[in-house]
Amino acid sequence: MKALKIPEATIVRLSVYSRFLEQVDKKGIVTISSGEIAEGVGVSPAQVRKDLAYFGEFGTRGVGYNVKDLLRHTLKILGLNARWPAVVVGAGNLGSALVSYRGFRERGFDIVGVFDNDLTKIGKRLMELEVMATEKIEQIVKQHNVKIGILTVPASSAKDAANLLINAGVKAILNFAPIVLSVPADVEVRDIDLSTRLEILTFHLCLKEMM
Amino acid sequence: MKALKIPEATIVRLSVYSRFLEQVDKKGIVTISSGEIAEGVGVSPAQVRKDLAYFGEFGTRGVGYNVKDLLRHTLKILGLNARWPAVVVGAGNLGSALVSYRGFRERGFDIVGVFDNDLTKIGKRLMELEVMATEKIEQIVKQHNVKIGILTVPASSAKDAANLLINAGVKAILNFAPIVLSVPADVEVRDIDLSTRLEILTFHLCLKEMM
Repeated sequence: MKALKIPEATIVRLSVYSRFLEQVDKKGIVTISSGEIAEGVGVSPAQVRKDLAYFGEFGTRGVGYNVKDLLRHTLKILGLNARWPAVVVGAGNLGSALVSYRGFRERGFDIVGVFDNDLTKIGKRLMELEVMATEKIEQIVKQHNVKIGILTVPASSAKDAANLLINAGVKAILNFAPIVLSVPADVEVRDIDLSTRLEILTFHLCLKEMM
Repeated sequence: MKALKIPEATIVRLSVYSRFLEQVDKKGIVTISSGEIAEGVGVSPAQVRKDLAYFGEFGTRGVGYNVKDLLRHTLKILGLNARWPAVVVGAGNLGSALVSYRGFRERGFDIVGVFDNDLTKIGKRLMELEVMATEKIEQIVKQHNVKIGILTVPASSAKDAANLLINAGVKAILNFAPIVLSVPADVEVRDIDLSTRLEILTFHLCLKEMM
């Protein structure tokens, strides 16, 4: 596996392909062509073949891919052949939405803890969880062997919250706070700043108006 | 402005710089060096200079940047010298969180409408808004001259919802549904699939375990 050369966009599409294959598999379809996958997810057939080629030979020329095999392979590449416990730090609106976000569970992510340092939020119930003080992060992370933390705190608290997660043993952080986190080399961070995503759109809207 | 060659990562960092400059400006600081910006947001000084250079000459050698000027410029480049009305389609947990997401308002985005086709959700109050039927999208989009739509519907409804937005005049879509949308060339789409972001992390976690 030429792992280190795989573009992030390929990983993203692999995730999209695997969801599509799940739907196809549910319909009882046994084989599928790259053209059918491409049409189903809205990319070119050449792109599908190129993306899948990073991970070895899956299909049979003229026959296509076995749906169940390809689904199993894509899920395994994404690490989704196992379930992943995760914790959410920040029990505001966004954090609360993520705790009950069905899309996580469907893909193998189980939120096992939600934390805040706001006394008015601690003790509040979110789904089957109770919001805990951030002092409890270490205990819960170790207890469930959590590797993934989701940060939905304000920018001003993000650094402290990230440190609590990392010190407890978290190795991957999905960061919703509008701040660039400095983390040790063995910790992966991906940022999702919701406003920034809108600002990319307004940047392009303005660009078009100028042209 | 060499607009079309600007990497998306630069736009993202520009958004981060402008938030940092806002904080610095509030503290009454008048000038700032690329090194100080770099330290404040966690990137290298060379990166800051390179990013800003896409948009012309801002700083004075040996003096640095005037904070207010640079802030105004970065906001203008991002289109944030105006406020942007936006609508949310999908009033589930995530949509509800976004309607009340303070980060949007702080950066100039005003949610002026929230829609769903679920009868149990229509009429529900979210902040100062009332969830409306998706049939009302066109009316609200035209009334407020909305260019930005945020999709928080399930994958199965995303295509229809996107079409309603585009037909009403929306030119930019922030898509949370795990599906690749096909849109006309004059419409910008950015996807935020929350599970996919976690799957990029699990991909890397698995990769590290293998090495």
